[in-house]
Amino acid sequence: MALVVCKFGGTSVGGAERLRAVAQRLVDRKLAGDRVVAVVSAMGDVTDDLVALAQNITDDPAEREMDMLLATGEQVTISLLAMAIHAIGYKAISFTGPQVGIVTDSGHTKAKIQEVRADRVSTALDAGMIVIVAGFQGVTPDGQITTLGRGGSDTTAIAIAAGIGADVCEILTDVDGVYTADPRVVPAAHKLDVVSYEEMLEMAATGAKVLQLRAVEFARNHGVVIHCRSSFNDMPGTIVREVDDSMEQAIISGVTHDTSEAKVTIRDVPDRPGVAAIVFSYMADANVNVDMIVQNVSEEGMTDISFTTPKEDLARAKRAADEVVTELGARLWSVDESIAKVSLVGAGMKTHPGVAAKMFSTLADAGVNLDMISTSSIRVSCVIDGVHVERAVQALHTSFGLDSDSVTAEMSPASGKGA
Amino acid sequence: MALVVCKFGGTSVGGAERLRAVAQRLVDRKLAGDRVVAVVSAMGDVTDDLVALAQNITDDPAEREMDMLLATGEQVTISLLAMAIHAIGYKAISFTGPQVGIVTDSGHTKAKIQEVRADRVSTALDAGMIVIVAGFQGVTPDGQITTLGRGGSDTTAIAIAAGIGADVCEILTDVDGVYTADPRVVPAAHKLDVVSYEEMLEMAATGAKVLQLRAVEFARNHGVVIHCRSSFNDMPGTIVREVDDSMEQAIISGVTHDTSEAKVTIRDVPDRPGVAAIVFSYMADANVNVDMIVQNVSEEGMTDISFTTPKEDLARAKRAADEVVTELGARLWSVDESIAKVSLVGAGMKTHPGVAAKMFSTLADAGVNLDMISTSSIRVSCVIDGVHVERAVQALHTSFGLDSDSVTAEMSPASGKGA
Repeated sequence: MALVVCKFGGTSVGGAERLRAVAQRLVDRKLAGDRVVAVVSAMGDVTDDLVALAQNITDDPAEREMDMLLATGEQVTISLLAMAIHAIGYKAISFTGPQVGIVTDSGHTKAKIQEVRADRVSTALDAGMIVIVAGFQGVTPDGQITTLGRGGSDTTAIAIAAGIGADVCEILTDVDGVYTADPRVVPAAHKLDVVSYEEMLEMAATGAKVLQLRAVEFARNHGVVIHCRSSFNDMPGTIVREVDDSMEQAIISGVTHDTSEAKVTIRDVPDRPGVAAIVFSYMADANVNVDMIVQNVSEEGMTDISFTTPKEDLARAKRAADEVVTELGARLWSVDESIAKVSLVGAGMKTHPGVAAKMFSTLADAGVNLDMISTSSIRVSCVIDGVHVERAVQALHTSFGLDSDSVTAEMSPASGKGA
Repeated sequence: MALVVCKFGGTSVGGAERLRAVAQRLVDRKLAGDRVVAVVSAMGDVTDDLVALAQNITDDPAEREMDMLLATGEQVTISLLAMAIHAIGYKAISFTGPQVGIVTDSGHTKAKIQEVRADRVSTALDAGMIVIVAGFQGVTPDGQITTLGRGGSDTTAIAIAAGIGADVCEILTDVDGVYTADPRVVPAAHKLDVVSYEEMLEMAATGAKVLQLRAVEFARNHGVVIHCRSSFNDMPGTIVREVDDSMEQAIISGVTHDTSEAKVTIRDVPDRPGVAAIVFSYMADANVNVDMIVQNVSEEGMTDISFTTPKEDLARAKRAADEVVTELGARLWSVDESIAKVSLVGAGMKTHPGVAAKMFSTLADAGVNLDMISTSSIRVSCVIDGVHVERAVQALHTSFGLDSDSVTAEMSPASGKGA
């Protein structure tokens, strides 16, 4: 008998048939002896429809009122899912985020969870109920309705799991788990049984879409075990948990890629102390998220500074770049929107040198030129031309022995990690 | 400068254009110097759509979960209306029923308001905001979301008006006010400038649909002045308030009619003490609302008992009648679904005898037979054959001098009120 939180996304609850299937799945868990909490998103396209309603009224809706509006989406799902469980003949009760004590700050449309007062969930579980909680929403200490922004329902599920001390938080989605690469790009990719929080964070940050970075961070900080699995079958998926460093870990767990960023370059910046600080304080002031940064070797007292940023921040980045060029007396700025980032992630990298070198030679053999490079202790990322992204991911997947019919490739102990 | 609560029904807020018109109307009131609270219903057919969603899941949804579901309808309206006011450039804030302290009992789908903690409304008004409140919904002391059932949004508006001590509660709807008769039936009907709570209660109870009985009762109990007017123009409508008995009042304020009831007759009941009590305790146990009751004169120790009931209660009434017939050894029961009830309402009736006699002779002259009669101190109602309802209402409207181009008819002081 386990205490489980099961989170279902919008696709899994889109429509009466799917809601009935989710209801049956929850009842099956209950019948197997588990204590069950479900966290659900808005059904299908409901959130988009609500956004469209607001856009019919104004181009610039107040964030507090958007939260008031969007929170209705999940509230509809929870009531219908409770009814669907009742229709099978089992006890269930629905709660909104505010009702269940998801207390947030007042950052409307992107609120952060401050506290979970989960007594109500525990009381309903004790009464033999399947408890259904609206994801994505919370309430400020003074009673304002908030939403948690991107990845909000995953975060709700993990927060509830932490609050009630659940054995596991299942994130049920339309994929089977975490793969060694995107199976649409690499048909030989295979599902991972276990990944560490650390690896999952790096994978989520570099393009793996199955789990939200923020939810994984929350899980790591509160020691919540995640089970990422399919909502359409009963196969085990991928467990995300703390992995003991004393255990032997795979050198490479996966190859990720991301084509959602663009590269901005400020050219011929005078190379004196503090210029980078000036560039990136302008970007920060313009609310531009910056990922990788490269400053080229100085030549005749001038240098180029490049960085990558999500394409959705690009309009703001361009305006800020105009100001930077004026402020620093740089020559000009340029943007490349066709880049891709490919990354290797693996906890075993820490103790196995040579991964970066092997990555670079693999890409070179595949005819892929490297534009920018960044590393962490368990990740190496390269920015390349976007037209090569599939070829690069496939080559790396094969080269590092991740293809499902191959064994782990030998690493040459002679090659160091550095390029 | 007045403190006003304005309630808009679903038709008035159905769609972006209408929401914008309501927003402009509220802003105009604000600019005229008033402190303004708006109470709104779900937009257009939204509530019906939500009910249909539930029916796709189950025939018998739990009432608590229906309230969870239906409460989203008004929450969408309040957020969009706040956005529409912002778009004109004015301050507005939306609140759900729970947020604004509409505390109810736990009678889900038909909860009764127990208390209004309106501090939040007053605080927002003090901050210069137009305050928008979701009608129809409340919260139990232990945090369950409830809905107020039929007429709920009107009741919310009146409760808020009472809670903040508003000067007037405007009920804005698709009709201009309270008429002397349904203008679709009587083209010569005219709008009343003022009616007393007492008259409005009788009119609402006998078929006038413009205001809900329950909301008028709440207003009378809390001394809230209602202004019932059109949401589509700025013409004054009808004021509903306490009318000083010392003032001269119209003998007849209006003619109402109602075709929503059916008549049930239990035939040949043994005429002994307690039989009526038995009949109506069976009906009460079956949750059958009973309106008029007539017991015929006894003949050979047997009697007939007839009553009227809303057609929506008829299936339950028939099952209860089966039991009654068995229990009492009555002959049989019969149902007439084609009845209509026509009523005369007027506070002046108290001091002007002869109204009933004149009503009966008017109907007789029009060839309308009377089936059942009931009276209160300010009302006379007759049940007639439904096919005659329009003719009956028209004849009474003319006979009592209510046609818009006629003067009040003289009452013959010789005729008594009794039949």
